[in-house]
Amino acid sequence: MKLILIGFGAVGQGFAEILLEKCADLSARHQFSADIVGVVTASKGNLYHPDGLDIAHLLRTAATGSFMDYPESEPLRRDWDASDMIRRGSAHVLLEASPTNLQTGQPALATCHLALDQGLHIVLANKGPVALDYASLREKAAAAGLHMRYEATVMAGTPTMHLAEDALAGCEIRSARGILNGTTNYILTQMESGMTYAEALAQAQALGYAETDPAGDVEGWDAAGKGLILANALFGSSLTMHDLDVTGITDISSRDVDQARQSGQRYKLIAEARPDGGAVSPQRLPLSDPLTSVGGSTNAITLDTDLLGRVTLIGAGAGKLETGYALLADLMAIQRAT
Amino acid sequence: MKLILIGFGAVGQGFAEILLEKCADLSARHQFSADIVGVVTASKGNLYHPDGLDIAHLLRTAATGSFMDYPESEPLRRDWDASDMIRRGSAHVLLEASPTNLQTGQPALATCHLALDQGLHIVLANKGPVALDYASLREKAAAAGLHMRYEATVMAGTPTMHLAEDALAGCEIRSARGILNGTTNYILTQMESGMTYAEALAQAQALGYAETDPAGDVEGWDAAGKGLILANALFGSSLTMHDLDVTGITDISSRDVDQARQSGQRYKLIAEARPDGGAVSPQRLPLSDPLTSVGGSTNAITLDTDLLGRVTLIGAGAGKLETGYALLADLMAIQRAT
Repeated sequence: MKLILIGFGAVGQGFAEILLEKCADLSARHQFSADIVGVVTASKGNLYHPDGLDIAHLLRTAATGSFMDYPESEPLRRDWDASDMIRRGSAHVLLEASPTNLQTGQPALATCHLALDQGLHIVLANKGPVALDYASLREKAAAAGLHMRYEATVMAGTPTMHLAEDALAGCEIRSARGILNGTTNYILTQMESGMTYAEALAQAQALGYAETDPAGDVEGWDAAGKGLILANALFGSSLTMHDLDVTGITDISSRDVDQARQSGQRYKLIAEARPDGGAVSPQRLPLSDPLTSVGGSTNAITLDTDLLGRVTLIGAGAGKLETGYALLADLMAIQRAT
Repeated sequence: MKLILIGFGAVGQGFAEILLEKCADLSARHQFSADIVGVVTASKGNLYHPDGLDIAHLLRTAATGSFMDYPESEPLRRDWDASDMIRRGSAHVLLEASPTNLQTGQPALATCHLALDQGLHIVLANKGPVALDYASLREKAAAAGLHMRYEATVMAGTPTMHLAEDALAGCEIRSARGILNGTTNYILTQMESGMTYAEALAQAQALGYAETDPAGDVEGWDAAGKGLILANALFGSSLTMHDLDVTGITDISSRDVDQARQSGQRYKLIAEARPDGGAVSPQRLPLSDPLTSVGGSTNAITLDTDLLGRVTLIGAGAGKLETGYALLADLMAIQRAT
């Protein structure tokens, strides 16, 4: 399986590290092997080699901030962009792991369409195209007999989409609700230990959970993007961000958190997706709800199904290897199905 | 896909009901269709028809306690046993849903070996063969290019094995620990509400959770059987029941439960599987453990992995449709892979 990787930040590098480290095991146990033939980045440069790039070299030169020192070896190309690689290269799968843009989905969205048009499967860590143009990508992929997977977009590599779309394929899923943003869950958990909102946010930033501009997290937009992906993927909706009611945690005070605790409850920022829509809002949950026990930056989701009742999955929602693993899991699923 | 179903109790009937009700949806959305060509039971009689049995008739006559009133239609056979159906019939998959025997695994174990010898995939709800002879069944299936699946044996249709064996295939699973017996979890939960052990057990029996002889549940053997399946399936162990340390909940008093609660903890009967063995024992868990929130007859499992850390799945551990669904999920996975 030959791969083009768009973006070589934490997720792309995490994926590359896993591939490098597990290559013998994956080949022996799962007859799985993959070569990264192309890498496209915004700041490090681009590389393409039809026989596969050397992953150890890739990681080493990426750490210097540029692929300049990646060794020459005919017919290596440094001048091809994503479009060249997709059109003129020999890859089977496009991995989209560049930064998410939830306003336009670009430039990833155009790259994904081009890849499908050119007969490549697509695997996304980038939430933009899946949140904003799910139906049309899905339709194009289906018409061409290609796979489109996006495990990394919700709960990192914790296999949410594998659970919902493969393992529960024979069930009807009626609704999904979950803690899909680790930063806000971390802040709420710290507030329960007595920190103020501002202190907890500062700590989340110090630990690298929250961006310098934390609005996307604390105002609920990151969770909303994931809610949208779930609504569109699980229920075939064609919703946009404007269709969701979104409330973040910025108005939750230490006093609110305390009062909830005194009634045996905890505040959680809950993203919900149903056939008719979705929402993001802070909710007071009782201790009997499995989502309530989920503390820190951990994520969780409860799927309500016709045959099994509620099924809850709890696990990592971020992290370099945790998200990188999602790309591997999607590639293995594509291999099993082709 | 033509199926032989061994056993037509709650699980077999649950599966048949799902097949009957979802048949149009499964065919439209997943290009999945299956015919039950044979049913073998201990007390209702046997039926075989090469074109498929009528599921509505099957369910209706089964409710009378006997297949006697199942309508005649050439070339229906009532005299074939499991061996005849496997050897002389046209089925692709054997579904083993007869009662579990954790001492010998029989007669299901012999039936499963015969099915593999004759080129049928096997899907088990019966825990016996998977707990007692996993390695040899797995080897025989692999050598013949056949599938062996057993989602129903652990946590009913809650997709534990799909999670561990498919979605997490690229991870190394280091250990599994879970609440795998609903009866004992129900009893412990009721004891937290003030019931004595005897009262809680009587209520579990009245609700049909516990057998008249509850020893298999309360002494931990049912959980141990599932722990053994996990140890053998996830770690390639060849353990037997004798290799597990098994302690049930019979020595847990209301006072123990109270004391735990006062320290912010809860007693849970935990089954553990590791590469080097396994155990079942009542443990006091802190509220921060996702297993702690799991009350009543619900089941849960935490898989500790190299790449994702801990992944926890919570859901139904019993029930007619819940367990019947596991058979469908396994069949759909076999269809995807063949």
